[in-house]
Amino acid sequence: MALTLGQLAVRFGCELHGNPSILVDCVGTLDAEGPVLGFVASKVYLPQLLATRVAAVVVDAKLAPSSPVPALVSANPHATFAHIASLLHPQSVAVPGVHPTALVHPDAQVDPTAEVGPWCMVGAGSKIGARALLGPHCTVGAQVTLADDVRLLARVTVCDGVTIGARSTLHPGCVVGSDGFGYAREGQGWTKVPQVGTVRVGEDVEIGANTTIDRGALGDTVICDGVKLDNQIQIAHNVVIGEHTAVAACVGIAGSTRIGKRCMIGGGTGMAGHLVLGDDIFITGFGMVTRSIDKPGLYSSVLPVEEARSWRRIVGRIKRLDSMAARLAALEKAAGVAAALQQEDSDD
Amino acid sequence: MALTLGQLAVRFGCELHGNPSILVDCVGTLDAEGPVLGFVASKVYLPQLLATRVAAVVVDAKLAPSSPVPALVSANPHATFAHIASLLHPQSVAVPGVHPTALVHPDAQVDPTAEVGPWCMVGAGSKIGARALLGPHCTVGAQVTLADDVRLLARVTVCDGVTIGARSTLHPGCVVGSDGFGYAREGQGWTKVPQVGTVRVGEDVEIGANTTIDRGALGDTVICDGVKLDNQIQIAHNVVIGEHTAVAACVGIAGSTRIGKRCMIGGGTGMAGHLVLGDDIFITGFGMVTRSIDKPGLYSSVLPVEEARSWRRIVGRIKRLDSMAARLAALEKAAGVAAALQQEDSDD
Amino acid sequence: MALTLGQLAVRFGCELHGNPSILVDCVGTLDAEGPVLGFVASKVYLPQLLATRVAAVVVDAKLAPSSPVPALVSANPHATFAHIASLLHPQSVAVPGVHPTALVHPDAQVDPTAEVGPWCMVGAGSKIGARALLGPHCTVGAQVTLADDVRLLARVTVCDGVTIGARSTLHPGCVVGSDGFGYAREGQGWTKVPQVGTVRVGEDVEIGANTTIDRGALGDTVICDGVKLDNQIQIAHNVVIGEHTAVAACVGIAGSTRIGKRCMIGGGTGMAGHLVLGDDIFITGFGMVTRSIDKPGLYSSVLPVEEARSWRRIVGRIKRLDSMAARLAALEKAAGVAAALQQEDSDD
Repeated sequence: MALTLGQLAVRFGCELHGNPSILVDCVGTLDAEGPVLGFVASKVYLPQLLATRVAAVVVDAKLAPSSPVPALVSANPHATFAHIASLLHPQSVAVPGVHPTALVHPDAQVDPTAEVGPWCMVGAGSKIGARALLGPHCTVGAQVTLADDVRLLARVTVCDGVTIGARSTLHPGCVVGSDGFGYAREGQGWTKVPQVGTVRVGEDVEIGANTTIDRGALGDTVICDGVKLDNQIQIAHNVVIGEHTAVAACVGIAGSTRIGKRCMIGGGTGMAGHLVLGDDIFITGFGMVTRSIDKPGLYSSVLPVEEARSWRRIVGRIKRLDSMAARLAALEKAAGVAAALQQEDSDD
Repeated sequence: MALTLGQLAVRFGCELHGNPSILVDCVGTLDAEGPVLGFVASKVYLPQLLATRVAAVVVDAKLAPSSPVPALVSANPHATFAHIASLLHPQSVAVPGVHPTALVHPDAQVDPTAEVGPWCMVGAGSKIGARALLGPHCTVGAQVTLADDVRLLARVTVCDGVTIGARSTLHPGCVVGSDGFGYAREGQGWTKVPQVGTVRVGEDVEIGANTTIDRGALGDTVICDGVKLDNQIQIAHNVVIGEHTAVAACVGIAGSTRIGKRCMIGGGTGMAGHLVLGDDIFITGFGMVTRSIDKPGLYSSVLPVEEARSWRRIVGRIKRLDSMAARLAALEKAAGVAAALQQEDSDD
Repeated sequence: MALTLGQLAVRFGCELHGNPSILVDCVGTLDAEGPVLGFVASKVYLPQLLATRVAAVVVDAKLAPSSPVPALVSANPHATFAHIASLLHPQSVAVPGVHPTALVHPDAQVDPTAEVGPWCMVGAGSKIGARALLGPHCTVGAQVTLADDVRLLARVTVCDGVTIGARSTLHPGCVVGSDGFGYAREGQGWTKVPQVGTVRVGEDVEIGANTTIDRGALGDTVICDGVKLDNQIQIAHNVVIGEHTAVAACVGIAGSTRIGKRCMIGGGTGMAGHLVLGDDIFITGFGMVTRSIDKPGLYSSVLPVEEARSWRRIVGRIKRLDSMAARLAALEKAAGVAAALQQEDSDD
């Protein structure tokens, strides 16, 4: 599909600097050529903008005058670019029908506009909504609800009783509704505690490749509307993630932790169980969250790499901080420093 | 299925406080209603117990008097609850037979009571035990042994030569017996070292969703009886995990490390290779284990998140600990502090 | 297959200490018996070598005189052993043909020597090279190129447009070409940014079990020739990994980071986005890389576990380093220490 800049300006409410009849048919990087639409979200990329040979760019009002090519001016260039890109590169849509190799239980209801792909299984009592798309090798258990426009791209496993809200997309290899890790100690070993809750996934959620979300032990695990989960995230039983929270790859969240709305959790972060995080909490990558956090803000605990030689010395110092504190206290005592100051640092 | 409290008290050896003819048909949280059995394992949940409207609860002798509803009294309420829950919510059982879409090699032996589900593959020389259950999309290689009552829930991959002990459960997406990461340096690149060992999984083991267990390079990787592995764990070649050890999600264990019995490894923990951990070692979440540990006990290395602003200051201090130590030593020298004390901290 | 030591010595250019007519038919550990070939790469294993009853070993010239059994002497015993092991334990090869359960699009080109296994799907416009092997349950999207001798072992997902170079091996459960995690903020929520780039994987690459590699947002994600990726690695959009770099399990690399050639990235390492790492950079396990690194060398940031009681004290000290620094500065002031020394440590 090719569209003119004029059409795009009208459709997305942008001011247009340049010839409205110029055509674009794809989005691309600033070093592309031809009928390509680029975008610049930050003045960091000004040098690339000045050298670009794309057909047009989406920019904000500040950068627009610097553009050597026609510009669609937007207050939120990233979002405008995303909308145009979705138009030029539409995602795959359901081709209505059940593939002859698929196995749909006679008690399941599949909307006639939905696509059930090759080697998919849909269990008893499950409902597949309008225009839902099940790619190859998907397993949908019993009593599952997939709302309208849900997309399971390929070999997604949705276990019994799970519900997925409208327009949510599940990427290859993800598992929703596997058993939580629940065992009771008994003698030397462990007795499995049946995980009888389920998972409720809201609308407009994305669940990344090979991400796993466990079903609740008794109550449910809940992923609210608009949550975005990257790849290889592990969400344990009875976790709740609030609306529009975004979680980057490789995050692990232990059981029963509740995260508020609009949080951003950096990649590789770990969270202990039974915590409560409020709204608008931001954790930098590789953070370790071991207590509840109430106050909105940015939190971190990453220790960046150093040359190994320096790092070994630093670790040695860290391990001997107690001794260092004792030496400091001894010096303070010798120097007659006020007890109050010293006290502040030696309480444990 | 519905059972009376009287039946449950007899079957599980509990003292019963209340009417033995009351029926329960499921387990649930304390805020449920109807013929639901709840449980309380800690006095932390006393307020919820006092307000509960479930039909009955499982509690210990201390909490029993506080229960407003009939109580099954157990010395180990969590385990008793687990057993009752397993009775009320029985897991899926094998429906004997090989699905017409499955491909079973003529030289494989499948017990007539086993279920081989849709699109499963069973390779040459493999043996599938009594009542074993293979859900959809499972691949069982050649010369594999699945003992009685093994359950592969869905799209589990078990590679050539692997053995899985009785009653073990493998959750969706897990891979057992993939190649270990073994390469020899040669010139600028790497030459693959064939991984000719296999994986031996014991009895009553659970392997979580999307967990990966590599086959041994020469000898085998060994997961002993009663081990419980959560989701997204990575176990490298030639690792040995002792009986009844429980490993939480997202743990990575490098090659040839041996872990003892009854250990508990917190989520997100990493272990270097070629280590030996004794029995009854507990590692808190996100621990980094880089040396062998002999002494039973609790180990930790987590640095919890702080507000990013404070954290940046702390990281700066950490990186300059050497300089701080030098300043402290200089002060001590000036103050004439005994050399011995100072020595203790400045050895490297 | 059984080969004589004489044949192996000639084929791999080894000096032979011992009887050239001795046969070996497999490789194994030093505690094996029978016609087994072992190897010793380090004098650490000298005791095992002295006690071995294998038929022969591969060793270097220094260890050869200590061997109680015939020895193939190599300057690089590990690599020589790898080559011999590959000969004695050949990997599975493609059995030409498309399995009747596979679905190959009429517009796809499958080389007649390639094997397309059960329940595989090959999309429109895709090309499968000579001797390529697709194990069960693999999904190959549209416009994909798999070069000669590529091996997709089982349930591998290769998304639209991805190219995989010759002789590369993809292990079970890996996903190549899933969407990158790209969203534009809009109002309270997130608008998806279509990920229109792809993934280009070079020759002789290995991609481990359940590893995920996202397609580029606009440009491509690039895995260069000879790269070795272990299990459960996450590679975000537009990452570039240079030739012969090896990445151990559970590493996460955020978007647009570029890693040079011949790097070694230890397991569990996390890397922030938009970084540049040069050639020959080594990161120890669990490292956290948050800035670009230019200088070749070994880098680390791991804090090893301590007994939890000691660790709690250490964390307390770390959190109060600011106060400790203030006390030190106060003492220095009182002692009249030169301001210069103090300054060095209190800049923030």
